[in-house]
Amino acid sequence: MPLEDLSLNLHTVRKQWTLRQAVEACARHGYQGVAPWRDMVQEISPAEAARIFQANGTRVTGYCRGGLFAAQGFDKLTEAIDDNKRMIDEAAALGAECIVMIGGGLAPGSRDLGAARKTFADGIAAIMPHARAAGIALALEPMHPMYAADRGCITTLGEMLDICDALGPGLGVAVDVYHVWWDPDLAAQIARAGRRIISHHICDWLVPTRHMLTDRGMMGDGVIDIAAIRRMVEAAGYGGIQEVEIFSDHWWSRPGDEVLATAMQRFKTAC
Amino acid sequence: MPLEDLSLNLHTVRKQWTLRQAVEACARHGYQGVAPWRDMVQEISPAEAARIFQANGTRVTGYCRGGLFAAQGFDKLTEAIDDNKRMIDEAAALGAECIVMIGGGLAPGSRDLGAARKTFADGIAAIMPHARAAGIALALEPMHPMYAADRGCITTLGEMLDICDALGPGLGVAVDVYHVWWDPDLAAQIARAGRRIISHHICDWLVPTRHMLTDRGMMGDGVIDIAAIRRMVEAAGYGGIQEVEIFSDHWWSRPGDEVLATAMQRFKTAC
Repeated sequence: MPLEDLSLNLHTVRKQWTLRQAVEACARHGYQGVAPWRDMVQEISPAEAARIFQANGTRVTGYCRGGLFAAQGFDKLTEAIDDNKRMIDEAAALGAECIVMIGGGLAPGSRDLGAARKTFADGIAAIMPHARAAGIALALEPMHPMYAADRGCITTLGEMLDICDALGPGLGVAVDVYHVWWDPDLAAQIARAGRRIISHHICDWLVPTRHMLTDRGMMGDGVIDIAAIRRMVEAAGYGGIQEVEIFSDHWWSRPGDEVLATAMQRFKTAC
Repeated sequence: MPLEDLSLNLHTVRKQWTLRQAVEACARHGYQGVAPWRDMVQEISPAEAARIFQANGTRVTGYCRGGLFAAQGFDKLTEAIDDNKRMIDEAAALGAECIVMIGGGLAPGSRDLGAARKTFADGIAAIMPHARAAGIALALEPMHPMYAADRGCITTLGEMLDICDALGPGLGVAVDVYHVWWDPDLAAQIARAGRRIISHHICDWLVPTRHMLTDRGMMGDGVIDIAAIRRMVEAAGYGGIQEVEIFSDHWWSRPGDEVLATAMQRFKTAC
Protein backbone atom coordinates (compact mmCIF):
# COMPACT_ATOMS: atom_id res chain seq x y z
CA MET A 1 0.00 0.00 0.00
CA PRO A 2 1.42 3.38 -1.00
CA LEU A 3 2.38 5.85 1.68
CA GLU A 4 -0.16 8.38 0.55
CA ASP A 5 -2.93 6.22 1.94
CA LEU A 6 -2.43 7.39 5.51
CA SER A 7 -4.20 10.25 7.26
CA LEU A 8 -3.68 11.60 10.77
CA ASN A 9 -6.44 12.46 13.17
CA LEU A 10 -5.04 15.65 14.64
CA HIS A 11 -6.16 14.79 18.17
CA THR A 12 -3.20 12.38 18.09
CA VAL A 13 -0.75 15.31 18.35
CA ARG A 14 -2.93 18.00 19.84
CA LYS A 15 -0.77 18.38 22.94
CA GLN A 16 2.32 18.95 20.79
CA TRP A 17 1.24 21.12 17.87
CA THR A 18 -1.16 23.73 16.54
CA LEU A 19 -3.25 22.78 13.54
CA ARG A 20 -0.80 24.53 11.21
CA GLN A 21 2.23 22.83 12.75
CA ALA A 22 0.52 19.44 12.62
CA VAL A 23 -0.53 19.81 8.98
CA GLU A 24 2.96 20.86 7.93
CA ALA A 25 4.46 17.94 9.84
CA CYS A 26 2.04 15.51 8.22
CA ALA A 27 3.09 16.78 4.79
CA ARG A 28 6.77 16.26 5.70
CA HIS A 29 6.11 12.70 6.90
CA GLY A 30 4.15 11.66 3.82
CA TYR A 31 0.64 11.69 5.24
CA GLN A 32 -1.80 12.52 2.49
CA GLY A 33 -4.60 13.68 4.77
CA VAL A 34 -5.59 14.89 8.20
CA ALA A 35 -8.79 14.89 10.23
CA PRO A 36 -9.14 18.05 12.34
CA TRP A 37 -11.34 18.56 15.39
CA ARG A 38 -13.83 21.35 15.48
CA ASP A 39 -12.26 23.33 18.33
CA MET A 40 -8.92 23.42 16.48
CA VAL A 41 -10.64 24.77 13.38
CA GLN A 42 -12.76 27.30 15.24
CA GLU A 43 -9.68 28.63 17.00
CA ILE A 44 -8.38 29.98 13.69
CA SER A 45 -11.59 29.98 11.56
CA PRO A 46 -12.61 27.48 8.91
CA ALA A 47 -11.33 29.77 6.14
CA GLU A 48 -7.84 29.98 7.64
CA ALA A 49 -7.80 26.22 8.24
CA ALA A 50 -8.82 25.64 4.63
CA ARG A 51 -5.90 27.82 3.44
CA ILE A 52 -3.50 25.74 5.54
CA PHE A 53 -4.82 22.47 4.09
CA GLN A 54 -4.65 23.80 0.53
CA ALA A 55 -1.16 25.26 0.97
CA ASN A 56 0.08 21.82 2.06
CA GLY A 57 -1.86 19.80 -0.48
CA THR A 58 -3.55 17.99 2.41
CA ARG A 59 -6.82 16.09 2.11
CA VAL A 60 -9.32 16.59 4.92
CA THR A 61 -10.46 13.04 5.40
CA GLY A 62 -12.91 13.77 8.18
CA TYR A 63 -14.14 16.53 10.46
CA CYS A 64 -14.61 15.58 14.13
CA ARG A 65 -17.19 15.31 15.41
CA GLY A 66 -20.92 15.79 15.17
CA GLY A 67 -23.98 13.96 16.35
CA LEU A 68 -24.47 13.79 20.15
CA PHE A 69 -28.12 14.72 19.74
CA ALA A 70 -29.37 13.65 23.19
CA ALA A 71 -26.31 14.66 25.18
CA GLN A 72 -27.53 18.13 26.20
CA GLY A 73 -31.05 16.91 26.99
CA PHE A 74 -34.02 15.72 24.98
CA ASP A 75 -35.42 19.28 25.12
CA LYS A 76 -32.27 20.61 23.44
CA LEU A 77 -32.64 18.60 20.25
CA THR A 78 -33.43 21.63 18.11
CA GLU A 79 -30.25 23.36 19.27
CA ALA A 80 -28.25 20.20 18.59
CA ILE A 81 -29.69 19.96 15.09
CA ASP A 82 -28.85 23.61 14.37
CA ASP A 83 -25.33 23.12 15.68
CA ASN A 84 -24.82 20.07 13.47
CA LYS A 85 -26.03 22.08 10.46
CA ARG A 86 -23.43 24.75 11.23
CA MET A 87 -20.85 22.00 11.40
CA ILE A 88 -21.89 20.85 7.93
CA ASP A 89 -21.32 24.38 6.63
CA GLU A 90 -17.89 24.42 8.27
CA ALA A 91 -17.05 21.05 6.73
CA ALA A 92 -17.97 22.40 3.29
CA ALA A 93 -15.74 25.44 3.85
CA LEU A 94 -12.88 23.12 4.86
CA GLY A 95 -13.35 20.83 1.89
CA ALA A 96 -13.81 17.91 4.32
CA GLU A 97 -14.69 14.55 2.80
CA CYS A 98 -17.06 13.63 5.62
CA ILE A 99 -18.14 14.48 9.15
CA VAL A 100 -17.71 11.80 11.79
CA MET A 101 -20.96 11.48 13.76
CA ILE A 102 -21.05 9.82 17.18
CA GLY A 103 -24.00 8.79 19.27
CA GLY A 104 -23.28 10.97 22.26
CA GLY A 105 -24.16 9.96 25.77
CA LEU A 106 -27.39 9.62 27.69
CA ALA A 107 -29.44 12.76 28.25
CA PRO A 108 -28.56 14.35 31.62
CA GLY A 109 -30.35 12.51 34.42
CA SER A 110 -31.67 9.85 32.03
CA ARG A 111 -31.07 6.11 32.14
CA ASP A 112 -32.92 5.56 28.87
CA LEU A 113 -30.34 4.32 26.40
CA GLY A 114 -33.06 3.42 23.90
CA ALA A 115 -34.35 7.00 23.91
CA ALA A 116 -30.83 8.37 23.38
CA ARG A 117 -30.40 6.02 20.43
CA LYS A 118 -33.72 7.03 18.90
CA THR A 119 -32.85 10.71 19.37
CA PHE A 120 -29.60 10.18 17.50
CA ALA A 121 -31.46 8.68 14.55
CA ASP A 122 -34.00 11.51 14.66
CA GLY A 123 -31.21 14.07 14.65
CA ILE A 124 -29.46 12.47 11.70
CA ALA A 125 -32.75 12.42 9.77
CA ALA A 126 -33.25 16.10 10.52
CA ILE A 127 -29.85 17.19 9.19
CA MET A 128 -29.70 14.91 6.14
CA PRO A 129 -31.28 17.40 3.71
CA HIS A 130 -28.72 20.02 4.76
CA ALA A 131 -25.85 17.54 4.41
CA ARG A 132 -27.01 16.39 0.98
CA ALA A 133 -27.38 19.97 -0.22
CA ALA A 134 -23.84 20.72 0.95
CA GLY A 135 -22.45 17.52 -0.52
CA ILE A 136 -21.05 16.42 2.83
CA ALA A 137 -21.18 12.72 3.66
CA LEU A 138 -21.91 11.72 7.24
CA ALA A 139 -19.83 8.86 8.65
CA LEU A 140 -21.76 7.26 11.52
CA GLU A 141 -19.27 5.91 14.03
CA PRO A 142 -20.27 3.29 16.59
CA MET A 143 -18.25 3.64 19.78
CA HIS A 144 -16.93 1.02 22.16
CA PRO A 145 -19.60 -0.01 24.70
CA MET A 146 -17.48 1.38 27.55
CA TYR A 147 -18.48 4.82 26.23
CA ALA A 148 -22.21 4.07 25.97
CA ALA A 149 -23.17 6.19 28.98
CA ASP A 150 -21.25 9.37 28.28
CA ARG A 151 -20.00 9.49 24.70
CA GLY A 152 -21.46 7.03 22.25
CA CYS A 153 -24.85 5.53 22.97
CA ILE A 154 -24.66 3.62 19.70
CA THR A 155 -22.18 0.81 20.15
CA THR A 156 -22.31 -1.47 17.14
CA LEU A 157 -21.82 -1.24 13.41
CA GLY A 158 -25.10 -3.09 13.00
CA GLU A 159 -27.07 -0.33 14.71
CA MET A 160 -25.42 2.36 12.59
CA LEU A 161 -26.15 0.39 9.42
CA ASP A 162 -29.79 0.11 10.46
CA ILE A 163 -29.86 3.92 10.48
CA CYS A 164 -28.17 4.03 7.07
CA ASP A 165 -30.75 1.57 5.75
CA ALA A 166 -33.58 3.71 7.07
CA LEU A 167 -32.31 7.11 5.96
CA GLY A 168 -30.74 6.37 2.62
CA PRO A 169 -28.00 7.94 0.53
CA GLY A 170 -25.47 10.40 1.90
CA LEU A 171 -24.87 8.26 4.96
CA GLY A 172 -22.13 5.77 5.66
CA VAL A 173 -20.17 4.38 8.56
CA ALA A 174 -16.78 4.93 10.17
CA VAL A 175 -15.03 1.72 11.18
CA ASP A 176 -12.59 2.44 14.00
CA VAL A 177 -10.80 -0.73 15.03
CA TYR A 178 -10.67 0.42 18.67
CA HIS A 179 -14.43 0.65 18.87
CA VAL A 180 -15.43 -2.49 16.97
CA TRP A 181 -12.68 -5.10 17.34
CA TRP A 182 -14.51 -7.06 20.08
CA ASP A 183 -17.80 -7.39 18.15
CA PRO A 184 -18.67 -11.04 17.45
CA ASP A 185 -20.74 -9.85 14.49
CA LEU A 186 -17.97 -7.67 13.03
CA ALA A 187 -17.19 -9.63 9.87
CA ALA A 188 -20.85 -9.90 8.92
CA GLN A 189 -21.55 -6.23 9.56
CA ILE A 190 -18.50 -5.03 7.61
CA ALA A 191 -19.62 -7.19 4.68
CA ARG A 192 -23.12 -5.74 5.03
CA ALA A 193 -21.71 -2.21 5.07
CA GLY A 194 -19.99 -2.71 1.73
CA ARG A 195 -19.31 0.58 0.02
CA ARG A 196 -20.99 2.49 2.81
CA ILE A 197 -17.68 2.38 4.70
CA ILE A 198 -16.42 5.93 4.25
CA SER A 199 -13.89 6.21 7.04
CA HIS A 200 -11.49 3.71 8.58
CA HIS A 201 -9.53 4.49 11.75
CA ILE A 202 -6.62 2.58 13.22
CA CYS A 203 -4.84 2.36 16.57
CA ASP A 204 -4.52 -0.53 19.03
CA TRP A 205 -5.98 -1.90 22.29
CA LEU A 206 -3.37 -2.16 25.02
CA VAL A 207 -3.33 -4.85 27.72
CA PRO A 208 -3.67 -3.59 30.33
CA THR A 209 -5.54 -0.44 29.35
CA ARG A 210 -4.76 2.07 32.10
CA HIS A 211 -7.32 4.73 31.26
CA MET A 212 -10.62 4.45 29.43
CA LEU A 213 -10.05 7.60 27.37
CA THR A 214 -6.34 8.27 27.05
CA ASP A 215 -4.55 4.95 26.76
CA ARG A 216 -4.99 3.88 23.17
CA GLY A 217 -2.04 2.08 21.68
CA MET A 218 0.14 2.54 18.63
CA MET A 219 -0.62 -0.03 15.95
CA GLY A 220 1.27 -3.22 16.74
CA ASP A 221 1.56 -2.56 20.48
CA GLY A 222 -1.77 -4.15 21.39
CA VAL A 223 -4.04 -7.08 20.69
CA ILE A 224 -6.27 -5.94 17.83
CA ASP A 225 -5.81 -7.99 14.68
CA ILE A 226 -5.66 -4.83 12.57
CA ALA A 227 -4.61 -6.66 9.42
CA ALA A 228 -7.61 -8.97 9.66
CA ILE A 229 -10.01 -6.04 9.99
CA ARG A 230 -8.28 -4.30 7.08
CA ARG A 231 -8.85 -7.40 4.95
CA MET A 232 -12.54 -7.38 5.88
CA VAL A 233 -12.86 -3.70 5.02
CA GLU A 234 -11.03 -4.14 1.70
CA ALA A 235 -13.16 -7.16 0.81
CA ALA A 236 -16.22 -5.00 1.44
CA GLY A 237 -14.98 -2.61 -1.23
CA TYR A 238 -13.20 0.07 0.77
CA GLY A 239 -9.99 1.21 -0.90
CA GLY A 240 -9.64 4.60 0.71
CA ILE A 241 -7.33 6.25 3.13
CA GLN A 242 -6.74 4.93 6.64
CA GLU A 243 -6.66 7.35 9.53
CA VAL A 244 -4.45 7.04 12.61
CA GLU A 245 -6.33 8.16 15.71
CA ILE A 246 -4.50 7.65 19.01
CA PHE A 247 -5.60 9.31 22.25
CA SER A 248 -2.72 8.52 24.55
CA ASP A 249 -1.03 10.16 27.49
CA HIS A 250 2.10 8.32 26.43
CA TRP A 251 2.12 9.47 22.81
CA TRP A 252 1.09 13.00 23.78
CA SER A 253 4.26 13.09 25.87
CA ARG A 254 6.52 12.24 22.91
CA PRO A 255 7.84 14.62 20.23
CA GLY A 256 5.30 14.98 17.43
CA ASP A 257 7.81 13.93 14.79
CA GLU A 258 8.45 10.69 16.68
CA VAL A 259 4.70 9.97 16.80
CA LEU A 260 4.27 10.57 13.07
CA ALA A 261 7.34 8.56 12.09
CA THR A 262 6.34 5.66 14.35
CA ALA A 263 2.75 5.58 13.09
CA MET A 264 3.91 5.65 9.46
CA GLN A 265 6.37 2.81 10.08
CA ARG A 266 3.78 0.72 11.95
CA PHE A 267 1.25 1.38 9.19
CA LYS A 268 3.64 -0.36 6.82
CA THR A 269 4.55 -3.26 9.14
CA ALA A 270 1.67 -3.90 11.56
CA CYS A 271 -1.50 -3.11 9.64
CA MET B 1 -39.96 -8.60 46.73
CA PRO B 2 -39.02 -10.26 50.02
CA LEU B 3 -35.67 -9.55 51.61
CA GLU B 4 -34.57 -13.13 51.34
CA ASP B 5 -34.17 -12.75 47.61
CA LEU B 6 -30.77 -11.05 47.87
CA SER B 7 -27.38 -12.73 47.73
CA LEU B 8 -23.95 -11.18 48.13
CA ASN B 9 -21.01 -11.90 45.91
CA LEU B 10 -18.27 -12.06 48.55
CA HIS B 11 -15.77 -10.18 46.39
CA THR B 12 -17.83 -7.13 47.34
CA VAL B 13 -16.43 -7.22 50.89
CA ARG B 14 -13.24 -9.18 50.41
CA LYS B 15 -11.03 -6.35 51.63
CA GLN B 16 -13.03 -6.10 54.88
CA TRP B 17 -13.81 -9.65 55.91
CA THR B 18 -12.85 -13.29 55.83
CA LEU B 19 -15.33 -15.72 54.31
CA ARG B 20 -16.66 -16.63 57.77
CA GLN B 21 -17.06 -13.00 58.82
CA ALA B 22 -18.79 -12.13 55.55
CA VAL B 23 -21.22 -15.06 55.74
CA GLU B 24 -22.15 -14.23 59.33
CA ALA B 25 -22.66 -10.58 58.40
CA CYS B 26 -24.86 -11.55 55.46
CA ALA B 27 -27.04 -13.62 57.78
CA ARG B 28 -27.37 -10.66 60.17
CA HIS B 29 -28.36 -8.32 57.33
CA GLY B 30 -30.98 -10.64 55.87
CA TYR B 31 -29.13 -11.90 52.81
CA GLN B 32 -30.31 -15.38 51.99
CA GLY B 33 -27.27 -16.36 49.95
CA VAL B 34 -23.66 -15.65 49.10
CA ALA B 35 -21.41 -16.35 46.14
CA PRO B 36 -17.84 -17.14 47.23
CA TRP B 37 -14.69 -16.97 45.11
CA ARG B 38 -12.47 -19.96 44.75
CA ASP B 39 -9.42 -18.52 46.49
CA MET B 40 -11.50 -17.70 49.58
CA VAL B 41 -12.79 -21.26 49.69
CA GLN B 42 -9.41 -22.87 49.08
CA GLU B 43 -7.89 -20.83 51.88
CA ILE B 44 -9.98 -22.73 54.42
CA SER B 45 -10.97 -25.84 52.38
CA PRO B 46 -14.33 -26.54 50.71
CA ALA B 47 -15.42 -28.70 53.67
CA GLU B 48 -14.83 -25.92 56.18
CA ALA B 49 -16.57 -23.38 53.92
CA ALA B 50 -19.53 -25.73 53.58
CA ARG B 51 -19.79 -25.96 57.38
CA ILE B 52 -19.86 -22.16 57.60
CA PHE B 53 -22.63 -21.90 55.01
CA GLN B 54 -24.68 -24.61 56.71
CA ALA B 55 -24.23 -23.16 60.17
CA ASN B 56 -25.61 -19.84 58.94
CA GLY B 57 -28.40 -21.29 56.80
CA THR B 58 -26.83 -19.57 53.78
CA ARG B 59 -27.50 -20.57 50.19
CA VAL B 60 -24.47 -20.69 47.89
CA THR B 61 -25.95 -19.05 44.82
CA GLY B 62 -22.81 -19.29 42.72
CA TYR B 63 -19.15 -20.28 42.84
CA CYS B 64 -16.74 -17.88 41.11
CA ARG B 65 -15.36 -18.53 38.63
CA GLY B 66 -14.50 -21.09 36.04
CA GLY B 67 -14.00 -21.14 32.31
CA LEU B 68 -11.00 -19.15 30.99
CA PHE B 69 -10.04 -22.04 28.74
CA ALA B 70 -7.69 -20.17 26.38
CA ALA B 71 -6.17 -17.82 28.91
CA GLN B 72 -3.09 -19.94 29.73
CA GLY B 73 -2.50 -20.83 26.08
CA PHE B 74 -4.14 -23.05 23.51
CA ASP B 75 -1.67 -25.83 24.44
CA LYS B 76 -2.84 -25.71 28.05
CA LEU B 77 -6.47 -26.61 27.31
CA THR B 78 -6.20 -30.05 28.93
CA GLU B 79 -4.93 -28.51 32.16
CA ALA B 80 -7.72 -25.93 32.08
CA ILE B 81 -10.33 -28.65 31.58
CA ASP B 82 -8.93 -30.66 34.50
CA ASP B 83 -8.92 -27.57 36.70
CA ASN B 84 -12.53 -26.80 35.81
CA LYS B 85 -13.47 -30.39 36.70
CA ARG B 86 -11.85 -29.96 40.11
CA MET B 87 -13.85 -26.78 40.52
CA ILE B 88 -17.04 -28.73 39.81
CA ASP B 89 -16.12 -31.15 42.59
CA GLU B 90 -15.50 -28.24 44.95
CA ALA B 91 -18.86 -26.70 43.99
CA ALA B 92 -20.58 -29.98 44.82
CA ALA B 93 -18.83 -30.09 48.20
CA LEU B 94 -19.98 -26.53 48.88
CA GLY B 95 -23.56 -27.20 47.84
CA ALA B 96 -23.25 -24.41 45.27
CA GLU B 97 -26.22 -23.89 42.97
CA CYS B 98 -24.06 -23.10 39.95
CA ILE B 99 -20.57 -22.20 38.82
CA VAL B 100 -20.13 -18.89 37.01
CA MET B 101 -18.11 -19.46 33.83
CA ILE B 102 -16.37 -16.60 32.04
CA GLY B 103 -14.72 -16.54 28.65
CA GLY B 104 -11.25 -15.63 29.81
CA GLY B 105 -8.90 -13.52 27.75
CA LEU B 106 -6.93 -14.13 24.60
CA ALA B 107 -4.24 -16.78 24.69
CA PRO B 108 -0.83 -15.26 25.55
CA GLY B 109 0.66 -13.65 22.45
CA SER B 110 -2.48 -14.25 20.41
CA ARG B 111 -4.72 -11.70 18.69
CA ASP B 112 -7.22 -14.35 17.65
CA LEU B 113 -10.42 -13.56 19.52
CA GLY B 114 -12.35 -16.08 17.41
CA ALA B 115 -9.98 -18.87 18.46
CA ALA B 116 -10.32 -17.91 22.13
CA ARG B 117 -14.10 -18.01 21.78
CA LYS B 118 -14.03 -21.39 20.10
CA THR B 119 -11.69 -22.74 22.79
CA PHE B 120 -14.14 -21.60 25.47
CA ALA B 121 -16.97 -23.53 23.78
CA ASP B 122 -14.70 -26.57 23.40
CA GLY B 123 -13.79 -26.41 27.07
CA ILE B 124 -17.40 -26.20 28.19
CA ALA B 125 -18.27 -29.18 26.00
CA ALA B 126 -15.43 -31.15 27.56
CA ILE B 127 -16.53 -30.57 31.16
CA MET B 128 -20.30 -30.94 30.65
CA PRO B 129 -20.42 -34.68 31.38
CA HIS B 130 -18.60 -34.08 34.68
CA ALA B 131 -20.90 -31.16 35.57
CA ARG B 132 -24.04 -33.17 34.77
CA ALA B 133 -22.81 -36.13 36.80
CA ALA B 134 -22.17 -33.83 39.76
CA GLY B 135 -25.49 -32.04 39.33
CA ILE B 136 -23.78 -28.64 39.05
CA ALA B 137 -25.27 -26.12 36.62
CA LEU B 138 -22.89 -23.92 34.68
CA ALA B 139 -23.87 -20.25 34.36
CA LEU B 140 -22.16 -18.81 31.28
CA GLU B 141 -21.49 -15.14 31.89
CA PRO B 142 -20.80 -12.75 29.02
CA MET B 143 -18.51 -9.94 30.09
CA HIS B 144 -18.43 -6.30 29.10
CA PRO B 145 -16.48 -5.79 25.84
CA MET B 146 -13.87 -3.71 27.68
CA TYR B 147 -12.69 -7.03 29.17
CA ALA B 148 -12.57 -8.91 25.86
CA ALA B 149 -8.76 -8.95 25.66
CA ASP B 150 -7.85 -10.06 29.15
CA ARG B 151 -10.87 -11.46 31.02
CA GLY B 152 -13.91 -12.32 28.97
CA CYS B 153 -13.53 -13.03 25.29
CA ILE B 154 -17.27 -13.70 25.07
CA THR B 155 -19.05 -10.40 25.30
CA THR B 156 -22.72 -10.91 24.55
CA LEU B 157 -25.62 -12.90 25.90
CA GLY B 158 -26.34 -13.99 22.33
CA GLU B 159 -22.98 -15.73 22.01
CA MET B 160 -23.42 -17.53 25.32
CA LEU B 161 -26.91 -18.66 24.33
CA ASP B 162 -25.50 -20.02 21.07
CA ILE B 163 -23.25 -22.23 23.21
CA CYS B 164 -26.22 -23.27 25.36
CA ASP B 165 -28.17 -24.13 22.21
CA ALA B 166 -25.29 -26.24 20.93
CA LEU B 167 -24.44 -28.09 24.14
CA GLY B 168 -27.83 -28.68 25.69
CA PRO B 169 -29.11 -29.18 29.24
CA GLY B 170 -27.11 -28.31 32.33
CA LEU B 171 -26.09 -24.98 30.88
CA GLY B 172 -27.57 -21.57 31.43
CA VAL B 173 -26.50 -17.95 31.53
CA ALA B 174 -25.61 -15.37 34.14
CA VAL B 175 -27.05 -11.92 33.44
CA ASP B 176 -24.91 -9.28 35.14
CA VAL B 177 -26.32 -5.83 34.48
CA TYR B 178 -22.81 -4.32 34.45
CA HIS B 179 -21.74 -6.53 31.58
CA VAL B 180 -24.85 -6.40 29.41
CA TRP B 181 -26.67 -3.10 29.98
CA TRP B 182 -25.26 -1.46 26.80
CA ASP B 183 -26.31 -4.30 24.46
CA PRO B 184 -28.81 -3.13 21.82
CA ASP B 185 -30.00 -6.73 21.54
CA LEU B 186 -30.45 -7.20 25.29
CA ALA B 187 -34.24 -7.45 25.49
CA ALA B 188 -34.39 -9.98 22.66
CA GLN B 189 -31.62 -12.11 24.10
CA ILE B 190 -33.08 -12.13 27.62
CA ALA B 191 -36.39 -13.25 26.14
CA ARG B 192 -34.55 -15.91 24.14
CA ALA B 193 -32.76 -17.08 27.28
CA GLY B 194 -36.02 -17.73 29.09
CA ARG B 195 -35.60 -20.19 31.91
CA ARG B 196 -31.95 -20.67 31.06
CA ILE B 197 -31.20 -17.58 33.18
CA ILE B 198 -29.75 -19.13 36.32
CA SER B 199 -27.91 -16.20 37.84
CA HIS B 200 -28.66 -12.48 37.93
CA HIS B 201 -26.11 -9.96 39.23
CA ILE B 202 -26.66 -6.33 40.08
CA CYS B 203 -24.53 -3.23 40.60
CA ASP B 204 -24.33 0.03 38.64
CA TRP B 205 -22.29 1.84 35.97
CA LEU B 206 -20.82 5.07 37.27
CA VAL B 207 -20.26 8.19 35.16
CA PRO B 208 -17.42 8.78 35.03
CA THR B 209 -15.96 5.32 35.59
CA ARG B 210 -12.50 5.93 37.04
CA HIS B 211 -11.09 2.43 36.75
CA MET B 212 -12.01 -0.39 34.40
CA LEU B 213 -11.91 -3.04 37.14
CA THR B 214 -12.52 -1.44 40.50
CA ASP B 215 -15.05 1.34 40.07
CA ARG B 216 -18.42 -0.38 39.90
CA GLY B 217 -21.24 1.52 41.52
CA MET B 218 -23.83 0.75 44.18
CA MET B 219 -27.28 0.24 42.68
CA GLY B 220 -28.90 3.62 42.13
CA ASP B 221 -25.63 5.58 41.93
CA GLY B 222 -25.16 5.06 38.19
CA VAL B 223 -26.96 5.00 34.87
CA ILE B 224 -28.09 1.41 34.43
CA ASP B 225 -31.86 1.03 34.29
CA ILE B 226 -31.70 -1.90 36.71
CA ALA B 227 -35.45 -2.07 37.18
CA ALA B 228 -36.00 -2.35 33.42
CA ILE B 229 -33.54 -5.25 33.17
CA ARG B 230 -35.17 -6.90 36.18
CA ARG B 231 -38.52 -6.69 34.42
CA MET B 232 -37.03 -8.32 31.32
CA VAL B 233 -35.50 -11.11 33.39
CA GLU B 234 -38.72 -11.69 35.31
CA ALA B 235 -40.74 -11.72 32.09
CA ALA B 236 -38.37 -14.38 30.79
CA GLY B 237 -39.33 -16.56 33.75
CA TYR B 238 -36.56 -15.91 36.25
CA GLY B 239 -37.86 -15.66 39.80
CA GLY B 240 -34.71 -16.45 41.68
CA ILE B 241 -32.32 -14.64 43.91
CA GLN B 242 -30.45 -11.53 42.82
CA GLU B 243 -26.79 -11.20 43.63
CA VAL B 244 -25.00 -7.96 44.50
CA GLU B 245 -21.52 -7.91 42.98
CA ILE B 246 -19.60 -4.66 43.37
CA PHE B 247 -15.86 -4.38 42.76
CA SER B 248 -15.09 -0.92 44.04
CA ASP B 249 -12.17 0.83 45.68
CA HIS B 250 -14.73 3.09 47.30
CA TRP B 251 -16.90 0.36 48.79
CA TRP B 252 -13.88 -1.71 49.80
CA SER B 253 -12.83 1.30 51.89
CA ARG B 254 -16.13 1.41 53.82
CA PRO B 255 -17.12 -0.74 56.83
CA GLY B 256 -18.58 -4.03 55.66
CA ASP B 257 -21.81 -3.50 57.62
CA GLU B 258 -22.33 -0.18 55.82
CA VAL B 259 -21.87 -1.89 52.45
CA LEU B 260 -24.36 -4.62 53.28
CA ALA B 261 -26.95 -2.24 54.75
CA THR B 262 -26.65 0.14 51.78
CA ALA B 263 -26.96 -2.64 49.20
CA MET B 264 -30.00 -4.09 50.97
CA GLN B 265 -31.66 -0.68 51.11
CA ARG B 266 -30.90 0.07 47.46
CA PHE B 267 -32.15 -3.36 46.47
CA LYS B 268 -35.52 -2.33 47.87
CA THR B 269 -35.58 1.17 46.39
CA ALA B 270 -33.46 1.27 43.23
CA CYS B 271 -33.85 -2.14 41.63
